[in-house]
Amino acid sequence: MNNKTLVVLSGGQDSTTCLFWAIDKFGKENVSAIGFDYGQRHKLELECASEICKNAGVEYTVINTPIINELSANALTRSDIEVDTEKPEDTPPNTLVEGRNMLFLTYAGIYAKTHGIKNLVTGVCETDFSGYPDCRDIFIKSLNVTMNLAMDYNFCIYTPLMWLTKAETWELADKLGVLDTVYNKTLTCYNGIIGEGCGNCPACKLRSRGYREYKLMNNE
Amino acid sequence: MNNKTLVVLSGGQDSTTCLFWAIDKFGKENVSAIGFDYGQRHKLELECASEICKNAGVEYTVINTPIINELSANALTRSDIEVDTEKPEDTPPNTLVEGRNMLFLTYAGIYAKTHGIKNLVTGVCETDFSGYPDCRDIFIKSLNVTMNLAMDYNFCIYTPLMWLTKAETWELADKLGVLDTVYNKTLTCYNGIIGEGCGNCPACKLRSRGYREYKLMNNE
Repeated sequence: MNNKTLVVLSGGQDSTTCLFWAIDKFGKENVSAIGFDYGQRHKLELECASEICKNAGVEYTVINTPIINELSANALTRSDIEVDTEKPEDTPPNTLVEGRNMLFLTYAGIYAKTHGIKNLVTGVCETDFSGYPDCRDIFIKSLNVTMNLAMDYNFCIYTPLMWLTKAETWELADKLGVLDTVYNKTLTCYNGIIGEGCGNCPACKLRSRGYREYKLMNNE
Repeated sequence: MNNKTLVVLSGGQDSTTCLFWAIDKFGKENVSAIGFDYGQRHKLELECASEICKNAGVEYTVINTPIINELSANALTRSDIEVDTEKPEDTPPNTLVEGRNMLFLTYAGIYAKTHGIKNLVTGVCETDFSGYPDCRDIFIKSLNVTMNLAMDYNFCIYTPLMWLTKAETWELADKLGVLDTVYNKTLTCYNGIIGEGCGNCPACKLRSRGYREYKLMNNE
């Protein structure tokens, strides 16, 4: 059985929780992680990811992919566009990078096959779906088939957070014994503040609401 | 009806024939083309493509994507690996770039959506299938679904050469009135010789065998 596993790691709460999920499931010796430098506003998230991997004792590879910026314009990569503080009613938030998860997972797949790895892990999540079509379960399943056909290989894409609320993702981190690491060492905030973040952007609001809910579930 | 169409154009026989197929079907005013600079041995093919587009009066955009070289090693991009002159028995030829068509079409899709284009055209072909899993019809259809899910958009991927032999591709070029252009202005040869090519590499052999067959079909 091939336990070798590649985690797509951005350095945020979700992907970091996935990293520790993968270590727990497949064993540290079988896990490595990959990240993408696509000209995002906050390179800091790659530094967070690198630090987390170093402390966890797993290898982290960063791939440069400025092409994402060439192909589409959006608030996560272009500093002249302001981040939406509220999600627009009818459209995805302007933090959308078209096809981003599709590209990242395809890159991860190419890298994985080249390194004899079959398992891919991603933190995408349908529960907090806020207009990103490439976070949906149906997309991931379709992508898994497409990648297997493209490369004639049996990838298995894991999405441990797909049906979890943000509170349940905190719970998972706690069960895995990494609540403090996830709380203090990850970067989710669109404004680039590690840990608790700015508190105002949509990512911070989602994160802190989930954390409060988890603490309430625990009667803390 | 949205006739806007993007052709993935490498400057070889197949994609060039597709370009003229698209112009014939959708009208020159609706067609543009996209190519990828991924560190291929022969940049000349991008120059061929550019020249062909200029003469045809359609726009050609080249996207830089060195990432393909970072992710996997192979004879088409690395000059220290020799091109197979015969296809190996049991494995794909070492000109395989893992997942290349998947990446190119995904890039094309992101670019297309950003530009309000729904139709994508690619010259992939199952008939001359020589071990590239991402040339298969089943892969393209799966990819079409995956891309539509990823971007919540109705892409329509056309593959006019999917079931044609190389002889029939020459016939198509002839019917479209571009036999001379395709014969003289395209680059298929792995050794970088425009038009008739080196005559020895697998691409040249396939191409010239097809041409002779087409001429025989026509009793020439």
